[in-house]
Amino acid sequence: MNFKKILLSEKDIPKKWYNLAADLPKALHPPLGPDGEPIKPEMLSKVFPMNLIEQEVSSKRWIDIPQEILEILYRWRPTPLRRATYLEEYLKTPARIYYKDESVSPAGSHKPNTAVAQAWYNKQFGIKKLTTETGAGQWGSALAFACSLLGLECKVYMVRISFEQKPLRKIMMQVWGAKCIASPSKETNSGREILKKMPDTPGSLGIAISEAVEEAVSDASGETRYSLGSVLNHVLLHQTIIGLEAKLQLKLAGEKKPDIVVGCVGGGSNFAGIAFPFVSDKINGEKIQIIPTEPTACPTMTRGEFLYDFGDASGLTPLLAMFTLGHNFIPAPIHAGGLRYHGLAPLVSAAIVQGLLEPRAYDQIKCYESALLWAKTEGAICAPETSHAIACVIDEAIKAKQEHKEKVILFNYSGHGLMDLTGYEKFLLGKLTDYSLPDDDLQRCLESLRGLPKPKK
Amino acid sequence: MNFKKILLSEKDIPKKWYNLAADLPKALHPPLGPDGEPIKPEMLSKVFPMNLIEQEVSSKRWIDIPQEILEILYRWRPTPLRRATYLEEYLKTPARIYYKDESVSPAGSHKPNTAVAQAWYNKQFGIKKLTTETGAGQWGSALAFACSLLGLECKVYMVRISFEQKPLRKIMMQVWGAKCIASPSKETNSGREILKKMPDTPGSLGIAISEAVEEAVSDASGETRYSLGSVLNHVLLHQTIIGLEAKLQLKLAGEKKPDIVVGCVGGGSNFAGIAFPFVSDKINGEKIQIIPTEPTACPTMTRGEFLYDFGDASGLTPLLAMFTLGHNFIPAPIHAGGLRYHGLAPLVSAAIVQGLLEPRAYDQIKCYESALLWAKTEGAICAPETSHAIACVIDEAIKAKQEHKEKVILFNYSGHGLMDLTGYEKFLLGKLTDYSLPDDDLQRCLESLRGLPKPKK
Repeated sequence: MNFKKILLSEKDIPKKWYNLAADLPKALHPPLGPDGEPIKPEMLSKVFPMNLIEQEVSSKRWIDIPQEILEILYRWRPTPLRRATYLEEYLKTPARIYYKDESVSPAGSHKPNTAVAQAWYNKQFGIKKLTTETGAGQWGSALAFACSLLGLECKVYMVRISFEQKPLRKIMMQVWGAKCIASPSKETNSGREILKKMPDTPGSLGIAISEAVEEAVSDASGETRYSLGSVLNHVLLHQTIIGLEAKLQLKLAGEKKPDIVVGCVGGGSNFAGIAFPFVSDKINGEKIQIIPTEPTACPTMTRGEFLYDFGDASGLTPLLAMFTLGHNFIPAPIHAGGLRYHGLAPLVSAAIVQGLLEPRAYDQIKCYESALLWAKTEGAICAPETSHAIACVIDEAIKAKQEHKEKVILFNYSGHGLMDLTGYEKFLLGKLTDYSLPDDDLQRCLESLRGLPKPKK
Repeated sequence: MNFKKILLSEKDIPKKWYNLAADLPKALHPPLGPDGEPIKPEMLSKVFPMNLIEQEVSSKRWIDIPQEILEILYRWRPTPLRRATYLEEYLKTPARIYYKDESVSPAGSHKPNTAVAQAWYNKQFGIKKLTTETGAGQWGSALAFACSLLGLECKVYMVRISFEQKPLRKIMMQVWGAKCIASPSKETNSGREILKKMPDTPGSLGIAISEAVEEAVSDASGETRYSLGSVLNHVLLHQTIIGLEAKLQLKLAGEKKPDIVVGCVGGGSNFAGIAFPFVSDKINGEKIQIIPTEPTACPTMTRGEFLYDFGDASGLTPLLAMFTLGHNFIPAPIHAGGLRYHGLAPLVSAAIVQGLLEPRAYDQIKCYESALLWAKTEGAICAPETSHAIACVIDEAIKAKQEHKEKVILFNYSGHGLMDLTGYEKFLLGKLTDYSLPDDDLQRCLESLRGLPKPKK
């Protein structure tokens, strides 16, 4: 019998997170401070609690997951690994397509994996309130959820375009007791500055990060910290439970290894979650094609440059060695709000530079076509972000058919699209725009990068 | 180790549905035709395909589930049985609370269990198009989903108040290729008649049923049938897979039997799904308290009468022996749109009359308070309908604490509330009304019932 779902029992949940930093052939470039020198961990202590900063700079391969965090994750983990048999049949492909279903979390995406961990470590450290940014709202609602369970206050700066496109996400955060406001806002210096220059800006993750960081570091009580939903090492670390579970589940399904692993990329956390345990295998000699996918409207990996840049718009964060379109880049208002980020996790960036990954970009229209085909075959409505992975999976399944190869394809079904239906409506009405970044605009972006430090080879 | 989730493998899925009609101590009262005589199955053949009519009138205890239907159900079934440990801790109750999580289906509720079965049987019978009504939109989206998977056309009449409150449900149906319009509409005689009398009516399930039945029976090609999301015997039958799975899962959790079973009731299908396999045990001597819950705004079970009444507003359906508030009853616009039905499944009605169930009514405010507590403890956001079960479960868990009794409570978590967040927003803003049906209005309802035939004792 071929099972449609491969389930794990709670007792089989991975007990450690996997840290790719321990295994990369070449060491990560350290973050730099305002003086251009590598920053010391203490310098981040107003932004993050020390226990998370220790994880951020750790080079240990395996890091224990505290039992109390596992107890919270059991609400929805281990998540199912599902086989997309109906899509396979529709495509008449010999490929076997598996997807890790992270949409089953109460917040509807992979984000709670790190939200719960971050809220827990902050609470351990005596923190009472977390601030954050959110794009599509998946991260904001995940942190609201985690803070609600752990009894922390939560304040979310939501990118204005998403705040307007997705009002339900705000209510979701409120149900979990969080405060959610549109960014740029008048509540911070960063927000006010930007509103002065661009009163009609749709906002960006970079701007929202500036606001959330500013609020955290300027709280005189010292009881507020900032929480980031992607990009940083410790965030990606917490997501590796996805790939570690998937590895156990593929074995249960009788598969030796995946031939292809796919994940969509905004800051990089859901991709890292599914992919890093397999990047490790690739470093150790396994033949695996690992594909991070991004929107053509925000082509950080495929058309950006690998430089030291700020994580936010106002330059409040350390300089990170990453692929970037420039910290002032404001992406077009595509519906995949979670993929509208100018930069990219340093760990994912390093894996690209070191030849371990093969990034691709997909345009919004093709992604919605893929999402519709998914709904009509597999039955579920995916997040617009997730459709960027599905588009690639469909391409690869068709290629496997042309090559008559029984490939095993694994991807991360990072979230459902039930809060994102207005994008589907526009697509069905033929009102969606492609929004690929035009060459001229790209050139202007790249010009703005001159002067940023280059990481050493 | 106490597990938070009790999972079943696909091979352990029940292979038969359970038919309570076979076990009720007293026989069901037959539906009556316009002449007051029991209708013959053939008389329904313009409304439903004969294979489903056979199920409707069957008195067989067990009915095989076709393998092709199981293959489709595997997309999300078996569903998890979860333990509400965090709610238990919060309430400091000795009760053990289990819930069957039907929210994991692609349409977000229990409704696809019968939608898939009905679409499949219709397709087998050569039908090309299904029409239906929907209240909150859970049923309409479930049938759209099923028709999409099976390649049938689908047209949904959605109760106007819900159509306006829940625009996203419409998009969901469109993603699955269905046509969804507000009811009453100008597309049918029934709709036009009602719009003439009450142009501003919020609509009702009864009216929407009239429209959908009218469209089905008036299609000259004979290739259209009507599909109902609740009330009828075959619909309840298809839902019993819920309770049958739950029974296996409770055993796996080490529980001999539940002491209390709870489900919310609109037409009665999610309640029947979880409860009927346990009603069977109760008939066979087990001590189980079985509680169907309804809104005080539409108190069919607790304040209605047991009579022969029509299932729809215009009197197109046969007369059914059921609890009813009268087929012209228009409930207040509570957010639990799926519970706004004037009547009640004949099988559930009979079980009440025969003393097997203990119905209760809850008001909207208490239900939202329960839903908020649920979100803050268990982490998930429930449907407004489901909150009517949770309110009762909380009452019973508190009672168990007062009585120092280790009761086992089981309920059906019939759906998630991600498409229903505007109701939560109003509650959080303090803008929700209680809407309990006033005595005067009830008296007027009951007056309107004079003249309807009484089922024999």
